[in-house]
Amino acid sequence: MRDRDWALDPALRARHTAFERYFAGVMPPGHELPPRLHQAMRYGALAPGKRVRPLLVLAACEAVGGRWRDALPAAAAIECVHAFSLVHDDLPAMDDDDYRRGRLTTHKKYGEALGLLAGDALLALAFEELVRLIARGVTAARAAEAVRVLARASGSRELIAGQVLDLEAERRRPDARGVRDIHERKTGALIAAALELGALAGGGRARMRATFARLGRSLGLAFQIHDDLLNRDSSLARLGKRAGTDQARGKATWPAAVGEERALRDRVRLFARVRRAIDRLGPRAHRLALLVDAIARRER
Amino acid sequence: MRDRDWALDPALRARHTAFERYFAGVMPPGHELPPRLHQAMRYGALAPGKRVRPLLVLAACEAVGGRWRDALPAAAAIECVHAFSLVHDDLPAMDDDDYRRGRLTTHKKYGEALGLLAGDALLALAFEELVRLIARGVTAARAAEAVRVLARASGSRELIAGQVLDLEAERRRPDARGVRDIHERKTGALIAAALELGALAGGGRARMRATFARLGRSLGLAFQIHDDLLNRDSSLARLGKRAGTDQARGKATWPAAVGEERALRDRVRLFARVRRAIDRLGPRAHRLALLVDAIARRER
Repeated sequence: MRDRDWALDPALRARHTAFERYFAGVMPPGHELPPRLHQAMRYGALAPGKRVRPLLVLAACEAVGGRWRDALPAAAAIECVHAFSLVHDDLPAMDDDDYRRGRLTTHKKYGEALGLLAGDALLALAFEELVRLIARGVTAARAAEAVRVLARASGSRELIAGQVLDLEAERRRPDARGVRDIHERKTGALIAAALELGALAGGGRARMRATFARLGRSLGLAFQIHDDLLNRDSSLARLGKRAGTDQARGKATWPAAVGEERALRDRVRLFARVRRAIDRLGPRAHRLALLVDAIARRER
Repeated sequence: MRDRDWALDPALRARHTAFERYFAGVMPPGHELPPRLHQAMRYGALAPGKRVRPLLVLAACEAVGGRWRDALPAAAAIECVHAFSLVHDDLPAMDDDDYRRGRLTTHKKYGEALGLLAGDALLALAFEELVRLIARGVTAARAAEAVRVLARASGSRELIAGQVLDLEAERRRPDARGVRDIHERKTGALIAAALELGALAGGGRARMRATFARLGRSLGLAFQIHDDLLNRDSSLARLGKRAGTDQARGKATWPAAVGEERALRDRVRLFARVRRAIDRLGPRAHRLALLVDAIARRER
């Protein structure tokens, strides 16, 4: 990760670094039996990354008055789910990608069986990790609620529904409504869950959690529209996979559905809406506001 | 499921029936978006089955003095994990099976992508379901501990480790120690987790849970040796997949590692050990004892 791609202020950068260290410790060591499985999990999860979802967890925790370190297990759990979804998305039965961010995909490096099983194991690990919130002083009731939120966001009505709709969209070009349905599930569900988990870990009230869930939906859509626009522009060197592959594959993207001009306007409008909602949360949400600005500015 | 294959006493049969009804309600309806994903999940999970693991959960709950109905979410959760593991095990990248119990495997019926995603969704659903224990009066602390137990049993050190070791065993014939390692993880982990979850849901103390976890290891090994011996004997009509396929494929089985005679003796010895341990638990464990006897007698 080069700094120019992901310009974080010093406090956010410190959280990024702390998360990376924590997350590496969550992954089973590569020498543990069965070694190749654990190496494949580490390969799939520990590639350098922006860690958008974990940083959202930590910032949301602070925004409700919690200590961000208490939310580290929730941040790790959501990154496990994200990594699981990427590893499985790249499999031959799905998008059949050989490269992601300029590196071989997990199944290209470790074989298809280990790609499949490493993904499975990352999903299971997410829930094992989430329970560790209790050791950081989060109540068992809140930890259990976090399990419910993450399981639902990862499941057949949200994240996995998005993957199915995305595959189906390759055959019939979806309209704006169809693309929105995909983006809200495939991207929005985990972004919204990140904010909800942070609020849960930080002791936020039910009303706050509902606000965050709603705000997360808009942020998820903004994030994905931004991604669609970057994918359209970028070259192999920048994005690490062939530019415009989404388009070539007939993937459902927002610019393809509504045109580039409207997509550019929607991006601005949605990020602005998210920022206004965060500003209303008061000074504690300052870090979350900075993070959203960094997300809106990211160049890959 | 024909009765002669799985001879349960009337009380266990009533629990079997209640579980089937409950479990069908846990699965998302087949018309819910995305319909084919939910249909694939139902197909993979709701095939007629013995429901050994759910019945163990319910009987373990009773054996510690709990009400078996309170443990239904835990029973459903463990069956979700079991179904997930079968659906993924059958995929082309793994065992590449076209049939299971005389029906097409999930990916043969719904395509490989949906086989993969339905398995993923069943694993996520397990954890969403487990949290429902709280609505049945189980404390949040116990529900969170149940999540930890199930996530660990399903993960890279247990169930999924067993699948990796099993795949690796196809190339180099493992000795008795190697086969034991596979069986303890691939089968024993979920059987032990079933007993632990039942004890948790029923309010059992930590010592009781440890006893159950230990007992579950022996039962898991006995169960799998029995399975290996059945697979060796049976014909397509009885087992629903080609008989002796494990052998033909060079799968790690106990009779292949130690010889048929010793395998027969080990099966008797292990089931007897489990029964003695259960008898020591007193009259409340009567139902669990009957269930273990039924498992030892099953003909498929």
